[in-house]
Amino acid sequence: MSTLLNATRSFVDAIASPSDVKRMSPEQLQRFAREIRQQIIESVSRTGGHLASNLGIVEITLGLHHVFDSPRDKILWDVGHQAYVHKMLTGRRHRFNSLRQFKGLSGFVTPVESEHDAFLSGHSSTSISLAVGMAIARDHLKQDHKVIAVIGDGGLTGGMALEAINHLGHIQRNVVIILNDNEMSISENVGGFSQYMKRIKETFFYKDIKEKLDQIEDTLDHIALQPQVWDLISSVKRQAKQRLETPGIVFEKLGINYTGPVDGHDVAAVVAALKKVKDLPHPQIIHVITQKGKGFAPAEADAVKYHGVPAFSLEKVEPQQSDKERAKTYSQVFTDALIDLASMEANLVAITPATAEGSGLVKFGKIFPERFFDVAICEQHAVTMAAGLAKAGLLPVVSIYATFLQRAMDQVIHDVGILNMPVIFAIDRGGLVEDGETHQGVFDIAHLRSIPNLRLLAPRDARELRDMLYTVVKQPDGPVAIRFPRDKAVRGNIDHPFEIIDLSAWEIVHDGEEVVLLAYGAMVDIAEQALPLLKEAGINPILVNARSCKPLDERMLRKFAGDASLKVVTLEEGSLCGGFGSGVLEWAARHRLNLPGRRQAEIVCLGIEDRFVEHGARQDLLDLCRLSPEKIAASIKRHVRGTRD
Amino acid sequence: MSTLLNATRSFVDAIASPSDVKRMSPEQLQRFAREIRQQIIESVSRTGGHLASNLGIVEITLGLHHVFDSPRDKILWDVGHQAYVHKMLTGRRHRFNSLRQFKGLSGFVTPVESEHDAFLSGHSSTSISLAVGMAIARDHLKQDHKVIAVIGDGGLTGGMALEAINHLGHIQRNVVIILNDNEMSISENVGGFSQYMKRIKETFFYKDIKEKLDQIEDTLDHIALQPQVWDLISSVKRQAKQRLETPGIVFEKLGINYTGPVDGHDVAAVVAALKKVKDLPHPQIIHVITQKGKGFAPAEADAVKYHGVPAFSLEKVEPQQSDKERAKTYSQVFTDALIDLASMEANLVAITPATAEGSGLVKFGKIFPERFFDVAICEQHAVTMAAGLAKAGLLPVVSIYATFLQRAMDQVIHDVGILNMPVIFAIDRGGLVEDGETHQGVFDIAHLRSIPNLRLLAPRDARELRDMLYTVVKQPDGPVAIRFPRDKAVRGNIDHPFEIIDLSAWEIVHDGEEVVLLAYGAMVDIAEQALPLLKEAGINPILVNARSCKPLDERMLRKFAGDASLKVVTLEEGSLCGGFGSGVLEWAARHRLNLPGRRQAEIVCLGIEDRFVEHGARQDLLDLCRLSPEKIAASIKRHVRGTRD
Repeated sequence: MSTLLNATRSFVDAIASPSDVKRMSPEQLQRFAREIRQQIIESVSRTGGHLASNLGIVEITLGLHHVFDSPRDKILWDVGHQAYVHKMLTGRRHRFNSLRQFKGLSGFVTPVESEHDAFLSGHSSTSISLAVGMAIARDHLKQDHKVIAVIGDGGLTGGMALEAINHLGHIQRNVVIILNDNEMSISENVGGFSQYMKRIKETFFYKDIKEKLDQIEDTLDHIALQPQVWDLISSVKRQAKQRLETPGIVFEKLGINYTGPVDGHDVAAVVAALKKVKDLPHPQIIHVITQKGKGFAPAEADAVKYHGVPAFSLEKVEPQQSDKERAKTYSQVFTDALIDLASMEANLVAITPATAEGSGLVKFGKIFPERFFDVAICEQHAVTMAAGLAKAGLLPVVSIYATFLQRAMDQVIHDVGILNMPVIFAIDRGGLVEDGETHQGVFDIAHLRSIPNLRLLAPRDARELRDMLYTVVKQPDGPVAIRFPRDKAVRGNIDHPFEIIDLSAWEIVHDGEEVVLLAYGAMVDIAEQALPLLKEAGINPILVNARSCKPLDERMLRKFAGDASLKVVTLEEGSLCGGFGSGVLEWAARHRLNLPGRRQAEIVCLGIEDRFVEHGARQDLLDLCRLSPEKIAASIKRHVRGTRD
Repeated sequence: MSTLLNATRSFVDAIASPSDVKRMSPEQLQRFAREIRQQIIESVSRTGGHLASNLGIVEITLGLHHVFDSPRDKILWDVGHQAYVHKMLTGRRHRFNSLRQFKGLSGFVTPVESEHDAFLSGHSSTSISLAVGMAIARDHLKQDHKVIAVIGDGGLTGGMALEAINHLGHIQRNVVIILNDNEMSISENVGGFSQYMKRIKETFFYKDIKEKLDQIEDTLDHIALQPQVWDLISSVKRQAKQRLETPGIVFEKLGINYTGPVDGHDVAAVVAALKKVKDLPHPQIIHVITQKGKGFAPAEADAVKYHGVPAFSLEKVEPQQSDKERAKTYSQVFTDALIDLASMEANLVAITPATAEGSGLVKFGKIFPERFFDVAICEQHAVTMAAGLAKAGLLPVVSIYATFLQRAMDQVIHDVGILNMPVIFAIDRGGLVEDGETHQGVFDIAHLRSIPNLRLLAPRDARELRDMLYTVVKQPDGPVAIRFPRDKAVRGNIDHPFEIIDLSAWEIVHDGEEVVLLAYGAMVDIAEQALPLLKEAGINPILVNARSCKPLDERMLRKFAGDASLKVVTLEEGSLCGGFGSGVLEWAARHRLNLPGRRQAEIVCLGIEDRFVEHGARQDLLDLCRLSPEKIAASIKRHVRGTRD
């Protein structure tokens, strides 16, 4: 490092480990911040990824590695997609071009990649709970390192982060919370808490009362007064100091010592704040103000757009898209359909837990601002609020990613399911997604299928998604979940009028013999692509669009599963443990009993094996999980021929 | 009512509907409170139920029905087990003796029972989300009724309640929150928030600063001062008033207007506070201080003990128990085992989300206070904190009811599952419980089974529960869930030394022929009771203790399921959709493929059908779900004989 300081090459090239950062002067850190920011822009322009949040957190990251001693000290990055700078400082800079690529670097933090990643995180609001656990363990094991949670103001809206703060305030363990406040989670932040933090910044230190008391003192200084008046004034000042000068009064009241606000783009200020609290006992929170997209003009101007981006050209700045990429996604088809339906149904309202951008609902919110509710990162609240809306006569549509619905499973059961509330769940990102283990939408079918009263649907294409939404809006009779993948919609560019469809009935898409493919949702299209490959092998299956996973189409099941001359193959982009295929097996087991002596078709279930699936493009992951057209065709050929696996 | 006022008979007998309460004077309300309290004590002494919380909320309930107009105004009772008084006032007094009995009144609120129950609630912390939804719907539909959420200080620790407050503070809809603060959820309350509310009560109105400024003013009154000094003083007072006189500063900062604290056992004070806020716009919170168990000395002295009680004698006060009832419950066996294990393993820690009483862990906490963490009603935080503890080298045991684990499904997947953290889940109340739909522990098997890396176990008796815990503590290799019912433990009074057992291996409990019963957990004992009934019909099944639902014992499955001369019957106290039986079907479907031409045993799955199960004693519910020994024997006889259902 000492040679580096005199060299002309950049710091970025010379950094080998966080210890290099520890030795830098404030000026060097500030220069380094500029360099690393440039490198992030260049890297993400090539690979795609989370740009704005990482540009915002450069100085915080440098400050953390300058003051603390990772991996001995444990730095817990909430959400984890804000940790690109951290990754660059901890030995992963040379692999950065592989970010979020199949078999490349993860877009999140994970201890599988580096000892500097103290834990894995992909979902929001987990860091303080992890920090509390690690601090308790540290104290129990009589260790003396530091535990630091870095969380955004968006993450702090999540109920579990508030649970953890509440607990931390009670047990008073030494944890340092860095609150990275950019007034924005994925989209604009929502909540009393965020309003409050805004006011903290506006009034900055609540200085006015103390200043005015100083003025009283100055004025009275010239007048002879009884000593008790001075005592009173100093007593008022002391209490004002204690109670008013604390901008983080809410945190203080909850037992967390507050420092801030700190300018998050001034490395020296960040370092000073971290040093100040480093050796203090008890829980600490440092409130750091940052700007998303800092240092890259297009991202500063539109941090929402640059939250997560595909690869883009630095010259043109506008993301480049191929013709295929410009086709509508399922999210866009969903939003456009919902806008059409909201025009017809005055009581339809839309709810999103901080995923307005990803789900396409921003557009809905602009047209129907009074009927659009972004409730922040609050999946539990979103679902139970929807139950309240439904009970009171509105028609709520909850747009939620499959992976985030895991946060609200109890609410689906307890608040929606039991009373059979007509809440519509639009489950986005159902299936494999490029973000990896933490974000795979593969458990939703199994989890929801066990809940009584729920109707589970998945469309084969854009038109069916529209018609499903139309039908459940026109004929609400209980909770419905409609699941679609994170991908371009099949036949996504065809517009057509809404039609009522029979939600419980499956349809035969392609007639054939010997084999029946029961394909759920997005698997219909993939199975269609497998048909020519099977034809080459002389196999011509019947392909069924099994649009309803619950209830099953018993009429069609009876016809096919009851025929021992057939092989029935279920296809789903979800876990095989308890999924759609299991539902078919359960049906067959139950109904065989009623048909003594009658043999059934053999049933084969294809889906995602019992393992967590890594990151990479959906196509790569489908292939990895043997759910690409080629792999499906191969599996079917093997099963039909009856050879061993 | 007017005749009533002069009559000698009690108010309680005369009450027909809440409108009678509306016409009472404050004195009449206070007398009525005494009468109704007496009736609750008498009723609960006969039926069992939640005593202490309902004695605490008598005056609040009377105040609500006096000031508001149910069912036009919507009163949302958080948790719902605090609504006995409400039930008595709303036409259900004469059925009160059937409380929590099979086919009797529910122990919670539910609109199925009364239009005065604005929604269903059994789990905690849902009321504010429901209120937000109902207030939005009211405003959208241009209605003008009131929406009131009644929540305890315990319920407010739940993350989703904090999410809802955060959102309500932002959208500023008119909702009245009654915070029933008894400093206790089920057991003693935990958290920075609760500490804060305690301080509110201690400092009561933060009056001191204003008083001192008054003193300055009085002193200075005698001295000629420049006008600007007076301006300064009055400006300081104004700001102090705004900022300091508010004891609910945390709520105010979040955008909720605070009133209180109010004495919750003074009906007139409660009524005055409710009237004050009734017609105010924007969100309101009234902080009411109550005492759990108020008016019944034994419950006042030990509200935890009288939280939920079996029937008891008013004369003896001590609950009466039969010999069988005095036998150890599974919860007690679990806690005693954990205490033994904690003596051996210094790094073992126990975590409970506010169920220390029910899970038996209070005893553990007394012996190992430093290794016991009651995190309040915070299931999400509990699980992720455990992941942090495990990553940092401790051995966390999370004791959690099956129904409450639904609140933390994402955390089990995201924070425990992916990194394969050695967290032990002791799942209490797995299966049917007397509390009804909201509390049935019947989804845990299906939900957890879909999560990779998890080992799912259920013991057949007390000894096996002990040995399972011992084995996973001695050989931690990833997350493990051990599930047991809310009941007396089978062979619960036998003490014996710990033994390491083969967790993945099933065991044959009874040898036989023709039929193989694969019984999971508590079903082993019930199946044993079914054996003599089957013997009468000439059926002598093999009974297998299928202690591991995941992984399955493939060696034994291959032996039995691969034998076409057998019938295999799976038995579980959980949902048939995706449960243990489905796992066996999935295994058979997968392995049949590898054995072309070879026929398999027919598999029959017995468990809980796809419906919500009502309340009642576990034995009644087992019978209702066809899982009693008699019903199981009947089902097997039918299947073995091959007759139609």
